[in-house]
Amino acid sequence: MYRKELTVISQSEGDIIDITEEVRRAVKESRIKEGLAHLFVHHSTAALTTIEYEPGVLSDLKRALSVLAPDNIPYAHNTRWGDGNGRSHVKAALVGPSLTLPVGKGELLCGTWQQVDLLELDVNAGRTRSITCTITGE
Amino acid sequence: MYRKELTVISQSEGDIIDITEEVRRAVKESRIKEGLAHLFVHHSTAALTTIEYEPGVLSDLKRALSVLAPDNIPYAHNTRWGDGNGRSHVKAALVGPSLTLPVGKGELLCGTWQQVDLLELDVNAGRTRSITCTITGE
Amino acid sequence: MYRKELTVISQSEGDIIDITEEVRRAVKESRIKEGLAHLFVHHSTAALTTIEYEPGVLSDLKRALSVLAPDNIPYAHNTRWGDGNGRSHVKAALVGPSLTLPVGKGELLCGTWQQVDLLELDVNAGRTRSITCTITGE
Repeated sequence: MYRKELTVISQSEGDIIDITEEVRRAVKESRIKEGLAHLFVHHSTAALTTIEYEPGVLSDLKRALSVLAPDNIPYAHNTRWGDGNGRSHVKAALVGPSLTLPVGKGELLCGTWQQVDLLELDVNAGRTRSITCTITGE
Repeated sequence: MYRKELTVISQSEGDIIDITEEVRRAVKESRIKEGLAHLFVHHSTAALTTIEYEPGVLSDLKRALSVLAPDNIPYAHNTRWGDGNGRSHVKAALVGPSLTLPVGKGELLCGTWQQVDLLELDVNAGRTRSITCTITGE
Repeated sequence: MYRKELTVISQSEGDIIDITEEVRRAVKESRIKEGLAHLFVHHSTAALTTIEYEPGVLSDLKRALSVLAPDNIPYAHNTRWGDGNGRSHVKAALVGPSLTLPVGKGELLCGTWQQVDLLELDVNAGRTRSITCTITGE
């Protein structure tokens, strides 16, 4: 087992940050040839998924998330806490904080058009996001 | 590897039940210091995710799920089986039944505002829900 | 650890293909008694989840996915690439490419009404989809 903490700094709400290279590097460092790479983001207003890292489809994804949690509706979370990030929590809970990918022949195995991404969902910009990367196997 | 079956009893549709303490206890019992904690709920009308366990945001999450599967539309599942829980199956399939979190220094690693929760999505109340918790590592 | 590549051929957009038997077979072949079964689909326009494999509820799930990514709206991905599958990428990123289930007494552990499914989300029919199945444990 090999563990590495990845750190990502986001600029603004809706940022989608490609972390595939950082995960590939962790896989190399682990020297594990056959196994799994697990990722977990330690924040309730960020999430992890895979998507083709292409500006058009990233904006399409943001639009879809705004169907679930629009900007312009009242949130009970905001009313209680005055945070303004009710929509961020909702999106993060639905996309989810964890992702596991296979490792084979010492490489991260994923499709050509399938990048690993952090979704910055908080309304407050400039956040440092921690992701625990755990590589297990042989 | 350490395995424990967790049991949760829900009261009604939409219940979100914080199981973080039960998972922490399983991690302690496992005596595993560095590894992963995997959770899986054995039902097609319940799901697992992380969210800040705060009543406001929990009600915001329920509203978002009702966008995907509203109460007041026809469901082909209900027409075929007369179950009334078509919306429950749809929500459960989209949120998902499994979740994996890291374990470090013998503790469950997750953010301060990130609780592990069972979502009771079935229309029929008072259900006993089984979650298999598997802790792997060293 | 035991690894097997599963291959699924889809016919058309929206196909939901039950792969539970293939996963059960891989668990048997692995001879692992207690552990985990991880699945990962290597494509950005397909996804994995669990749902009751019943035609009514499958069509209900398709309707819910079309709320997130309707057929009849413009997609930035389509405008840039002329692909026509912007909605496919969006749905796949929200459902997710990976799924982990427990293995106990040499069997895949999941609920009676909980089948493991590949969601074919691409608009282009007749695709061969690769899923890496990794069984870990003792």
